[in-house]
Amino acid sequence: MNKTYTDLNPSPRLLLGPGPSMVHPRVLRTMATPLVGHLDPDFLAILSDVKDLLRFVFQTENELTLAVPGTGTAAMEAALSNLIEPSDRLLACIHGYFGERLAEMADRYGAQTKRLQRPWGEVFDPDEIDLALSTFPAKIVTLVHAETSTGALQPDIDVISEICHRRSALLVLDCVTSLGGMPVEIDSWDVDIAFSASQKALSAPPGLAPITINPRAREVITKRSSPPPAFFLDLLLLERYWSDQPIYHHTAPISTTYALREALRLVYEEGLPARFRRHRAVAENLWQGLEALSLPLFVPQEIRLTTLATPQLHQGIDDANLRQRLLEIYNIEIAGGFGPLAGKIWRIGLMGYSSRVENVRLLLAALEDLLGE
Amino acid sequence: MNKTYTDLNPSPRLLLGPGPSMVHPRVLRTMATPLVGHLDPDFLAILSDVKDLLRFVFQTENELTLAVPGTGTAAMEAALSNLIEPSDRLLACIHGYFGERLAEMADRYGAQTKRLQRPWGEVFDPDEIDLALSTFPAKIVTLVHAETSTGALQPDIDVISEICHRRSALLVLDCVTSLGGMPVEIDSWDVDIAFSASQKALSAPPGLAPITINPRAREVITKRSSPPPAFFLDLLLLERYWSDQPIYHHTAPISTTYALREALRLVYEEGLPARFRRHRAVAENLWQGLEALSLPLFVPQEIRLTTLATPQLHQGIDDANLRQRLLEIYNIEIAGGFGPLAGKIWRIGLMGYSSRVENVRLLLAALEDLLGE
Repeated sequence: MNKTYTDLNPSPRLLLGPGPSMVHPRVLRTMATPLVGHLDPDFLAILSDVKDLLRFVFQTENELTLAVPGTGTAAMEAALSNLIEPSDRLLACIHGYFGERLAEMADRYGAQTKRLQRPWGEVFDPDEIDLALSTFPAKIVTLVHAETSTGALQPDIDVISEICHRRSALLVLDCVTSLGGMPVEIDSWDVDIAFSASQKALSAPPGLAPITINPRAREVITKRSSPPPAFFLDLLLLERYWSDQPIYHHTAPISTTYALREALRLVYEEGLPARFRRHRAVAENLWQGLEALSLPLFVPQEIRLTTLATPQLHQGIDDANLRQRLLEIYNIEIAGGFGPLAGKIWRIGLMGYSSRVENVRLLLAALEDLLGE
Repeated sequence: MNKTYTDLNPSPRLLLGPGPSMVHPRVLRTMATPLVGHLDPDFLAILSDVKDLLRFVFQTENELTLAVPGTGTAAMEAALSNLIEPSDRLLACIHGYFGERLAEMADRYGAQTKRLQRPWGEVFDPDEIDLALSTFPAKIVTLVHAETSTGALQPDIDVISEICHRRSALLVLDCVTSLGGMPVEIDSWDVDIAFSASQKALSAPPGLAPITINPRAREVITKRSSPPPAFFLDLLLLERYWSDQPIYHHTAPISTTYALREALRLVYEEGLPARFRRHRAVAENLWQGLEALSLPLFVPQEIRLTTLATPQLHQGIDDANLRQRLLEIYNIEIAGGFGPLAGKIWRIGLMGYSSRVENVRLLLAALEDLLGE
């Protein structure tokens, strides 16, 4: 009568979806390390390393740089819930699913949200944002650097940031699918808040979400008339826990923090320029192979992510069935499109430890087999 | 000039603080398992097991039972942010730090909060709550089952629940330090929402927070006039992800979910009555040893947690210095008191895999050495 629960034994997948990406064996190994307490001096030294290394990967000197104890969605929400006070104006630049998610969060926090839309897969011209701000003076502009739903990279962040600041707006940038795989230059671009997730191009397991807040944005947060609604995501409380004199706020995800440190150490050892070159070379390899299989890329090359490829499907392809066979026969995970792109594209991630030429060759061989059947 | 980051090498601690507790080797091992995707059929089967096993440990049939992708604080906030609409009346029963934290969260979400106070270390008589509700008809009552700041167990939850329902209030119960170590009988007590954390008596690493919502509370949530502010903690969106037809909401912390499943499997194998007996026997062993060291327990035996002991310090003890030497010489973590109990008590956790007689004997021997110096 009693149910039995078997040993954990998940299939050995090759993760080539939009995240989680493959986790390097060195990172997996750290996850099995026995725990220390969240206020242990040994753990505080680990937090300090993580903070340093996050500044390195975000290319910033921002003091307020840390990892939110949740997923990328938690960091996205931390950014907005700390900045927005009811009736604040927010301009949401939307060219895919995650741009809309930011707008929905803003609505929930009582912002006056204006949606500036671009068809999914396109990107914004900075002048459009300037024009929108000229008639809708916003306190906050949200923008997605790397749209995980489309595969498009928003260029000209430095120009857009300059426009936002000239118009007295703060720029919040979603770097979930770019950080650690493509250049993210927070200080030289002068981005006010940027956030990401551990399980994309940083290749750690999910459960922590890097965020960095510059002094301009921090000052806005400190001048709020009331504390932000979400205690769990209160950046000033998180900052106190991540300080030299930590004050308890939550019990940090110890093991995932071990893993994030090791994953960041791998980024540091490789070096950012080499890492970005690797992501580009491996992506180009995939792009060529996809074109050869008559799966042209959805996004033009000049605004294409190297971390996530989005080939267009032709009519003969039974999307769900093919992805299911790819998973069942070859143990390879890729993702479908969603929203207006459901059934029209795939989303193939080549992030962090997933970004290796052998993975591309195997995927292309498997696709060739399945498409040729 | 470049900084170097060494291999991860934290000290081998014996965790006898208020959490995280020690993690069983079987659970640690699962953390090193390569990841699958958060929508992989293999992972959905794991989520389904976790849901089943959480119902087992909460002793409930509640369909809406899952683990919030954050720490215990996230589950606490999920409970309140989904129930509270602005100006709702909330009665916060406070007999320690976490009772006050619930009240602070309620304030942030715009509730009319009334604080019913008891000195730290005491518990409530159900009649007091009845009286308070007679003059302050509240929509929600918050109560802490096991106060991690004092070591006291609130008894009579079934009586209090009956009072709440007679007065048309919902009961939200914080079971962070009881679930998995002491009886938590959600259905027979008729508790509306209860939550906990993975890293206490369940002995998994931190990063997931079990929560269970009964149909009465779920209905209140579905009838909100607007969605709850915190998208990340929106229980109806979390419910959809944890369903048979999952819809993407966040990227689940895969590795921590593996670990929670294995930790819950250990609870299931041991059985709840045996597990509660073990926690009691080991705690009694500690209590006797502490009394013999002239460290009498702060909380009377009839309302004492078996998961967390709080001995009172006598004047000769240099609190911070002694705990530091316990950590440095013996690698044992215990915690101090805070708030009004700072310097007056210690907090010694014996939860899950930490609850073993050999840990008690070592701690007592180490304390004897240090106190005798």
